[in-house]
Amino acid sequence: MAKEIHSIQGIEFGSASSNTRYGEREDSLVVTIPSEAKLSGKFTSNQLKAAPVLEAMHNLSSLEKGRKVLLINAGNANAANGPKGIKDVKKYCREVASDLDIDQKNVIPFSTGVIGEALPVSSYLKAFRKALTKLTPKGWNKAAEAILTTDTKPKIVSKEVKVGKASYLITGFAKGSGMIRPDFATLLSFVFVDAKLNQSALNKIHNQALKVSFEAITVDGDTSPNDSSLLVANGNNKKMVKAGSLAEKKITLAIIETFKELAELLVKDAEGASKLIKVQVSKAKNLEQAKSVGFTVAESPLVKTAMFGSDANWGRILSAIGRDNTVEDLSGLQIKLNGLPLVKKGYKDPKYSEKAASKAMKKREITIEIILGSGKHEFEVITSDLSEDYVLINSDYRS
Amino acid sequence: MAKEIHSIQGIEFGSASSNTRYGEREDSLVVTIPSEAKLSGKFTSNQLKAAPVLEAMHNLSSLEKGRKVLLINAGNANAANGPKGIKDVKKYCREVASDLDIDQKNVIPFSTGVIGEALPVSSYLKAFRKALTKLTPKGWNKAAEAILTTDTKPKIVSKEVKVGKASYLITGFAKGSGMIRPDFATLLSFVFVDAKLNQSALNKIHNQALKVSFEAITVDGDTSPNDSSLLVANGNNKKMVKAGSLAEKKITLAIIETFKELAELLVKDAEGASKLIKVQVSKAKNLEQAKSVGFTVAESPLVKTAMFGSDANWGRILSAIGRDNTVEDLSGLQIKLNGLPLVKKGYKDPKYSEKAASKAMKKREITIEIILGSGKHEFEVITSDLSEDYVLINSDYRS
Repeated sequence: MAKEIHSIQGIEFGSASSNTRYGEREDSLVVTIPSEAKLSGKFTSNQLKAAPVLEAMHNLSSLEKGRKVLLINAGNANAANGPKGIKDVKKYCREVASDLDIDQKNVIPFSTGVIGEALPVSSYLKAFRKALTKLTPKGWNKAAEAILTTDTKPKIVSKEVKVGKASYLITGFAKGSGMIRPDFATLLSFVFVDAKLNQSALNKIHNQALKVSFEAITVDGDTSPNDSSLLVANGNNKKMVKAGSLAEKKITLAIIETFKELAELLVKDAEGASKLIKVQVSKAKNLEQAKSVGFTVAESPLVKTAMFGSDANWGRILSAIGRDNTVEDLSGLQIKLNGLPLVKKGYKDPKYSEKAASKAMKKREITIEIILGSGKHEFEVITSDLSEDYVLINSDYRS
Repeated sequence: MAKEIHSIQGIEFGSASSNTRYGEREDSLVVTIPSEAKLSGKFTSNQLKAAPVLEAMHNLSSLEKGRKVLLINAGNANAANGPKGIKDVKKYCREVASDLDIDQKNVIPFSTGVIGEALPVSSYLKAFRKALTKLTPKGWNKAAEAILTTDTKPKIVSKEVKVGKASYLITGFAKGSGMIRPDFATLLSFVFVDAKLNQSALNKIHNQALKVSFEAITVDGDTSPNDSSLLVANGNNKKMVKAGSLAEKKITLAIIETFKELAELLVKDAEGASKLIKVQVSKAKNLEQAKSVGFTVAESPLVKTAMFGSDANWGRILSAIGRDNTVEDLSGLQIKLNGLPLVKKGYKDPKYSEKAASKAMKKREITIEIILGSGKHEFEVITSDLSEDYVLINSDYRS
């Protein structure tokens, strides 16, 4: 949790309860965004796209002038509901647009929750209307809470970037118990920047940030129909941030850092997770290989259960690397765990100490360094361990 | 377990204990194969190949005339041991070759057990020598037991094929608690046929059988450095089986069936498994898509935990299909579970009944039919569920 949450000028929040899945807990969030803002949205790569995702993609590609409104509901994914799902989401967007007298394209919906259950449209619409009566620029913490499903805590990150006399603020919040439960705990992320950026710069920064954050974390490799990430520049900070300027560089780095911190918060709160594991692959022949090896190791149930059991089982890490289909040669391979040598030249490092490795494994944060060979590329994947609780949570019956 | 185990003419077994990991349990198996036999070996695709795998691959590619001997030890994988591992395996092969006065290339080693521990060569050599004094053509059940590690029971399949007045016998045994614990429970399979087949026919049948058996099962996607499959035609059945003959067809089918049954026995005995799950993909645009979707669903932790929890969670199956990178369109998709409709046209089938689906999920064997679209290709993947016991077994410390 960030120490100080910076409000972002022009951004306002309101939340209310739909009185559906979560009783009186507020589960419906409205965010209003000023007309001068720019928005960049990125969505799930899953072919199964929830109705609000399809609607949001469509609307973002054809925004009209004027202020924008985000409608976010937790508890129902409105995914796999066929034409009825589309009709339902359009209904509450249309009604809110009409209430506010804005173009319907400027109303952008997001959902998270159970797949395949009909959306209780009127309940959520009622909640959104109530939320609109409570708009406040100070509602960041409540907003971060309203979008949660199985998460155990809100995730919010806030930063200030100083460039000479100018100051740029960034605040974002996200939810998702690690993308591991797509029928319940989808990834949603909203990051706001107090700066004037043009659309193409914003898109570029968004892509850069996603590559090393939400696209570099995994709990079980499962994605959801609802995964959505929105990056908003409020447009308020006097002068346009120039391409290639120091300000642009510093803002970009801070946005990337915000995304990375949010991603780590998600993994830390992943269902059943007891450890945060960073798989750092280096000296790969290309980025593809670095990513591929990183994800193969990070998603190996054998590696993940060994981590849960605090077993420095280097044989499983080695074996997972060996089965990755980008790997052709293990003769230059080194593996380290929290700095301790495990593997050298493809087999047990002579300096390996079972005692030291066992001690290192007791930590809550584990870094596995995989030095592949003589290439120049690197990538880091962040994941959690695989615990009995993961199985318990996910084998629980839906209803 | 097969009702009747047919001995295969000329094949003899002896087993003994190395008195290492398993105390007095017999863990060292010798198999002798007559000189007129043909052998086809297929090995792990993992780049991390155990020393005996490298040695076996080398020897099988340069067999000399005369009888052949298989040496199989359980308890130690002799993998990731570097040059020392190679030296060790060569040592016991050389000694046994010398004892029997055969070419060392005709001694083919196999191992299964813990990765990265030095092989206790003299203990295993002593056991192999003792085993050689006890050779018997009746030792099939004991052989199937000697190769086990964490398996809870031996896996053995035996068949008789009749073609006119001729009879061909097939018997095979395998081990592996589902390939899911490569440091302990590697896949090893040995199938013997009482028939005269030429080398290329044998290789072809072996490939065909593997594709629909050991290459179509998964527990967690992890492969091991020791996975080995050997198919042996003893060469004893009077006349050469002609290419394209009815006999060849019937023998091929029976061998394929033997491999499939062994593969199913492995999945049924997978660590922590409570259910056998068949993922049948059909109407795929090509075989690659059918396989890819089958494995994506079969390896999805969310699908597997839902199966464990007897939850007909069609949203998770649908979502796993949606994230498979060969899938571009879900509009023609149907999903059935033990014949019951779950999904139609990409969303919940109007005929879906939660009650009926829940009842179906209680069964020990679950068939998930995935009908993708309008293609003509199909593939079946067999897997197990993901239980708390899987995590318990695999998070247990090695030593």
